[in-house]
Amino acid sequence: MSEKKVPAFGANHAVLQPGSRDSGIQLRSKVWLEVDGKLFMGWGRAQLLERIDELGSISAAARSMKLAYRNAWLWVEAMNRLAPRPLVEKTTGGSRGGHARLTEEGRRIVDAYKRVRSSVREQARGTL
Amino acid sequence: MSEKKVPAFGANHAVLQPGSRDSGIQLRSKVWLEVDGKLFMGWGRAQLLERIDELGSISAAARSMKLAYRNAWLWVEAMNRLAPRPLVEKTTGGSRGGHARLTEEGRRIVDAYKRVRSSVREQARGTL
Repeated sequence: MSEKKVPAFGANHAVLQPGSRDSGIQLRSKVWLEVDGKLFMGWGRAQLLERIDELGSISAAARSMKLAYRNAWLWVEAMNRLAPRPLVEKTTGGSRGGHARLTEEGRRIVDAYKRVRSSVREQARGTL
Repeated sequence: MSEKKVPAFGANHAVLQPGSRDSGIQLRSKVWLEVDGKLFMGWGRAQLLERIDELGSISAAARSMKLAYRNAWLWVEAMNRLAPRPLVEKTTGGSRGGHARLTEEGRRIVDAYKRVRSSVREQARGTL
């Protein structure tokens, strides 16, 4: 047993030191959004939306995240259904398959989610 | 569909209003501690420790939370094993069964966990 793995619990130390690899104790946090008790947006879905915005299609976005297309499609459907207005607009497009784009609404909510997530994580780091 | 259920996404509104029942979108967050990738403390375990401190036995604490004694016992074992020093001291006591008490260490870590959890939740509320 390495002395270094022992968290600094003593009165002369910070109670927890999650920033330090040596503290042994790690602070974890998770932030997500729900609508009617159903998952609306978490980190994975936010990533998917950003990649749709970047790549212009659900399948390309899914591929870039090593996410099954079916899952990506289900996530988009769920988000569009739960949001007041669609976050992703799909166009069933000719020979090259469908394209998709993030709406203004989608962009706004992804930004809001990322902002609150960062701020919560920052806060968690700062507290202990 | 009630107009009131629609989140205020518009440019003239806060992007999300998790504090409001009418916003439709709820911000959720979770904070826990891990040691070596294993759950060390979350809200349920912190509650259990507080009740052990209050009631002086694992079984009374478990009962008060409607938690199976076996689970409570396993949680205590896991926390004691993962912490540098035990959080709960058990005494196998005579005819009235065993008693348990929270150590100084236990009190310190429960307090630290609760503090960071509150501060994270406060932060989350304030951000959106």
